[in-house]
Amino acid sequence: MTLAEQLLSGNRLALTRLLTQVENDTPEGRAALTELFPHTGKAHLIGVTGAPGTGKSSLVNQLALHFRRQDERRVAVVAVDPSSPFTGGAVLGDRVRMRDLAGDPGVFIRSMASRGSLGGLAQTTAGLVQVFDAAGFDIILVETVGAGQAEVEIARLAHTTLVIEAPGLGDDIQAIKAGILEIADILVVNKADRPGVENTLKALKSALELAHPVRHVFQHHGKLEVVEAADKPDYNSWIPPIRQTVATDGEGVSELADEIARHAQHLRESGDWTARDRSRLGSELDALLQETLLARFREQVPDVQYEKVLERVFQRELSPWEAVKMLLNGGAK
Amino acid sequence: MTLAEQLLSGNRLALTRLLTQVENDTPEGRAALTELFPHTGKAHLIGVTGAPGTGKSSLVNQLALHFRRQDERRVAVVAVDPSSPFTGGAVLGDRVRMRDLAGDPGVFIRSMASRGSLGGLAQTTAGLVQVFDAAGFDIILVETVGAGQAEVEIARLAHTTLVIEAPGLGDDIQAIKAGILEIADILVVNKADRPGVENTLKALKSALELAHPVRHVFQHHGKLEVVEAADKPDYNSWIPPIRQTVATDGEGVSELADEIARHAQHLRESGDWTARDRSRLGSELDALLQETLLARFREQVPDVQYEKVLERVFQRELSPWEAVKMLLNGGAK
Repeated sequence: MTLAEQLLSGNRLALTRLLTQVENDTPEGRAALTELFPHTGKAHLIGVTGAPGTGKSSLVNQLALHFRRQDERRVAVVAVDPSSPFTGGAVLGDRVRMRDLAGDPGVFIRSMASRGSLGGLAQTTAGLVQVFDAAGFDIILVETVGAGQAEVEIARLAHTTLVIEAPGLGDDIQAIKAGILEIADILVVNKADRPGVENTLKALKSALELAHPVRHVFQHHGKLEVVEAADKPDYNSWIPPIRQTVATDGEGVSELADEIARHAQHLRESGDWTARDRSRLGSELDALLQETLLARFREQVPDVQYEKVLERVFQRELSPWEAVKMLLNGGAK
Repeated sequence: MTLAEQLLSGNRLALTRLLTQVENDTPEGRAALTELFPHTGKAHLIGVTGAPGTGKSSLVNQLALHFRRQDERRVAVVAVDPSSPFTGGAVLGDRVRMRDLAGDPGVFIRSMASRGSLGGLAQTTAGLVQVFDAAGFDIILVETVGAGQAEVEIARLAHTTLVIEAPGLGDDIQAIKAGILEIADILVVNKADRPGVENTLKALKSALELAHPVRHVFQHHGKLEVVEAADKPDYNSWIPPIRQTVATDGEGVSELADEIARHAQHLRESGDWTARDRSRLGSELDALLQETLLARFREQVPDVQYEKVLERVFQRELSPWEAVKMLLNGGAK
């Protein structure tokens, strides 16, 4: 039996091993992803993103507990940790709080280190999500730090994206909101027992009015496709609701879970569920294409030739663009 | 005269126009970058990164003022704003605080919107930096939100990277530090007049001891190259100092500027200045290569063929990997 077959038959050790293979992008991991792919497409992918200090890890913890205990669903958490791009080591930190869930076979938590390459992070996350999906997890929560562009990209993997805010994080937060609001399906003001919550709610509400989208953009075949809301009125029928939670004592979590279920239903009824799946798979295909093209190119060009061209760039004899042209047209003189 | 020539002769309007061309990645922008490239490599690139709420925009403002007024150097600021990946519009927000500098021709501030593609942000930032460098700006401050991986990547463009922290931003910050410490050349605790500053300093100091690097990793020809510190003792001779500032009233800014100057001297003496330049240009070359390879490939494969393959992925008949193989081997059946 292959690892993938073991996974499909419910072997938990196979799951752990496959996640590692996929995270390390090994040939075995890639083969398994191909084998598992036909079994994917069932899970509800939920992105949870927010700035540091919003308490999103605690909220993810509470949501996982809720889905598990109230609905008996199998829940996976992929935590994309803001750890070093150099060492590749995951920082545990927040994960420690997940101990409430330890020992329950219906819950699986995976902390992921950031990887060296930019594309890599979104791609690896997509791979891990596929493994969990094929393994039969009903809900997959992907937690990202928020604020960064790579994180936004990862959030776009999801069917439902929660954007977490909290009162009193300083006015820099205001700038974040404007950008991140457009990826939010549900806005959550966590730490809602803190002073300043009214201001946060007010700021979010007025930002929401401004951000009310008139068009929707998908990345497709490497190009951005624009769909005018007027051409597809369904798109606009979901106005992101704002929920308040206090994750530390579970307040508002049940209502948030209801909102998530309501969003899933909206996606299915409007056809957006499929649209988001397509957009995600299209991006994934493009990323793989790009990576494979570069790898093939590298095989063709000897290192010594590449180094020669690079040296001329260092000496400012060639601009990077001229260097690319030279490399693509058959090398250095 | 080309725009690039006008820029080199000190025309400020040409500068503004070229920055826009480069940000929009137009053919004119690319041509200008090639023309300007031989004139680059002189500026001191300073990355300033930190989580929302640390007050880094105010600090950038103060540093720009200091370099300008004390040292009479020409200062450019590139602010990479966490704005929407969809609209491409820059959020002004923090920039408003820069009004102290308005009207001084020796200072130029550019806010940049995040772009749709992941690689794009770092690449565009590199382009803007080259324009400022060729235009004779002595110091280029690149401000990023921090926390995200794309931001880390951008910080790596710099000769000197400042990582900004502040007291009382919640314990999530702890996780950030561990990852971001390794890119820091200088650590700054801003808002140092706030309660909790002792705890922040203590946490940073112990994290620094843990993070004391034993090896250095560069991205080169798309691969990660590892240099053991023991093989190159110079690398280890810079231990990131920790400075305290209160950006709102300028406290500690002069001392921070001295530390930055000391770091520049260290880079020049140790040869790391050149090493960082090389690493930056190598990454840039690879990014351009990858982009060009994908563009060329797209020209070769008709859209209808691509769509056919993509549709089979949606139907889960093909995994993304199988689809890539099929596309690269000449298309769909």
